[in-house]
Amino acid sequence: MKITYLDHMSANPLLPEVKAAMIDAINQDFGNPSSQHTVGEQAAEVLDRARGQVADLINCREPREIVFTSCGTESVNQAIKGIAFAHGDKGRHIVTSNIEHNAVIRSLRRLKAMDYTVTSVSVDDLGKVKPDDVANAIREDTILISIMHSNNEVGTLQPIEELVRVAKEKKVPFHTDAVDSVGVVPVDVQKLGVDLLSFASNPFYGPTGVGGLYVRRGTRIFPLLDGGVQEHNRRAGAENLVGIVGMGVAAELAKKEMTGRIGHSLKLKEKLLSELPNYIDEFIINGHSTETLPNLISISIKYIEGESVVLMLDDEKIAVSTRSACATGSLRTSHVLQSIGREYADAQGTLIVTFGKENTEEDVIRFLTALRDVVKTLRDISPLYRKSSPTAGLPLP
Amino acid sequence: MKITYLDHMSANPLLPEVKAAMIDAINQDFGNPSSQHTVGEQAAEVLDRARGQVADLINCREPREIVFTSCGTESVNQAIKGIAFAHGDKGRHIVTSNIEHNAVIRSLRRLKAMDYTVTSVSVDDLGKVKPDDVANAIREDTILISIMHSNNEVGTLQPIEELVRVAKEKKVPFHTDAVDSVGVVPVDVQKLGVDLLSFASNPFYGPTGVGGLYVRRGTRIFPLLDGGVQEHNRRAGAENLVGIVGMGVAAELAKKEMTGRIGHSLKLKEKLLSELPNYIDEFIINGHSTETLPNLISISIKYIEGESVVLMLDDEKIAVSTRSACATGSLRTSHVLQSIGREYADAQGTLIVTFGKENTEEDVIRFLTALRDVVKTLRDISPLYRKSSPTAGLPLP
Repeated sequence: MKITYLDHMSANPLLPEVKAAMIDAINQDFGNPSSQHTVGEQAAEVLDRARGQVADLINCREPREIVFTSCGTESVNQAIKGIAFAHGDKGRHIVTSNIEHNAVIRSLRRLKAMDYTVTSVSVDDLGKVKPDDVANAIREDTILISIMHSNNEVGTLQPIEELVRVAKEKKVPFHTDAVDSVGVVPVDVQKLGVDLLSFASNPFYGPTGVGGLYVRRGTRIFPLLDGGVQEHNRRAGAENLVGIVGMGVAAELAKKEMTGRIGHSLKLKEKLLSELPNYIDEFIINGHSTETLPNLISISIKYIEGESVVLMLDDEKIAVSTRSACATGSLRTSHVLQSIGREYADAQGTLIVTFGKENTEEDVIRFLTALRDVVKTLRDISPLYRKSSPTAGLPLP
Repeated sequence: MKITYLDHMSANPLLPEVKAAMIDAINQDFGNPSSQHTVGEQAAEVLDRARGQVADLINCREPREIVFTSCGTESVNQAIKGIAFAHGDKGRHIVTSNIEHNAVIRSLRRLKAMDYTVTSVSVDDLGKVKPDDVANAIREDTILISIMHSNNEVGTLQPIEELVRVAKEKKVPFHTDAVDSVGVVPVDVQKLGVDLLSFASNPFYGPTGVGGLYVRRGTRIFPLLDGGVQEHNRRAGAENLVGIVGMGVAAELAKKEMTGRIGHSLKLKEKLLSELPNYIDEFIINGHSTETLPNLISISIKYIEGESVVLMLDDEKIAVSTRSACATGSLRTSHVLQSIGREYADAQGTLIVTFGKENTEEDVIRFLTALRDVVKTLRDISPLYRKSSPTAGLPLP
């Protein structure tokens, strides 16, 4: 039986056009883009073309504002540590939010051990940062504000334009982790006004292990990877040409097909949300209802464990997740769900469903049908459920 | 006309088996190795297999001593900065050599701006580090010794085992940049005794944009990329699975074919070195004659500019280089050639020829024939040549 894949946040399949471009790149045996001979020049042209495609997707003023990296995590580390190290003599204070991805949180934790200080602003119960809170957090020695574009667990989109206005008034560089937004919803670096923006290729059906960092021209930043002169001296190391070619093609397609993809996701999302009460009861939908990623639904289901649901759905060949794949193995409850006010037990019962291009309404119904059975089975053996619902069914024999 | 490619140091073509494995990986649409469902588990198995293949190539005690990175440069940055940041409270002194790759030099330069100090030992005129010099450079506060396994410009192999013995006596962690050695000559981390060893996939016909760092079990090191729990918590970020699969297959082939590949390179090298005097005069062969990479020849040709030779040979569809591709665009003369005592003018006239599996004796003769003409043309218009050789031919009309 085919797998019903509803975990596009963790990994997206490659588009046929992306596969074809990568296979072609493999077969071409490109040289080193830094070499001075013709073999190298051909590789440099391929790199330029991909840079143009990616720059176009987020509306860069010039392609060289894009630095190719090996993943969204590298982009985030590069942005945060690169700014911190370059401006450390001016100040050592950074403002962030309570619901960032681990790449941001742990980069900041690393800096804290190096005498930087961090102010983390809270979010409301829909996951929104309040611009006033950011304004109040800025100090004389603030050198960076880093607030995500969209949240990877509940989908909420932040008011980046407003936040950037606050930052600009105080002349503080602004970075946004847009890994789950770029190629999924419209992202325009000119309109947003950000100085740095992190993204990755896989959310828009490009390969994993390729990312990018937008660095507005004139932004003072140190490289994270020191060495050769690649990426206009901003990221040393031999380029993953095959992956970069794939990301370029994926970026071009994402731009062209974005409206259609968003419409498709929203249709599935509405279907799931409207049908869900017919299949299970006692759940909470997390995040903002409209200012959110079109392809993500976060559901906290009462009296069960999300991990058990994932494993039991997996037996039915349905793939969903409980949280960011980057946090797998961590036993702690989600800091995002805690920040928006979910109680511990509800946070533990959370599922994240993320749609992709190939999903259908049948996938939604198949998921809901399986979910109903799984939730019933788990609640039947849940002490929490029996305690709070004395009339609930007895445990299975 | 087919290109005679003699610049395998800059970029190697992929082996057919590596291409096939990568194309298969592209077509499989692997999930995220960190996901908890079956799709993710399949990806995790693929990652494990590649880790085993790579661990086997350098004789790790256990595969998890391998951390996959995005390139040799990242491996080197990770090793040096990761150790420096983890041991910064114990001491801030690092020992290195004068002929390291830019990835090492510039990582150390970055650390110097963060209150670390560096002692760089000189090399002899064949490019060898003397163990006594390293012993004398070690101080109470030395936290790392980083000396390359083989030099990327002149090929000289360092006495790593001896150097490690010196380091072990003083209990200082030892890192070696083995990017141009792993998969090219036998590298055995048990025999060498190193704590950290950087390598990349392309020198053994794997894809660019994939590298690895060997970290001996028990070595205290901080991640360079903070975020998720990938790579046993030592390198966050979504994995470049397609590239890693390619590196795994390339590693397995490199181990199997190493003796044959070395023999093939040595035959071509001997041919070139024995024939060279029949084609040009007044040149110097750089580096050690036996303790050296089998696939590399560095020739300093008097009274000419290496860059002009590269461009003129390129017109003849022959690809060679003057130095590391990572240093292209830099106008400064090679620090490696200066360190082994080459004068400025001779350093500028240096060519690096690197052989690969597919090269033949005909390639050597084709290169030598073209080189003879190019050198004659350039010397005829060289004021240096006319000054030092008053009987040399007049400039071309």
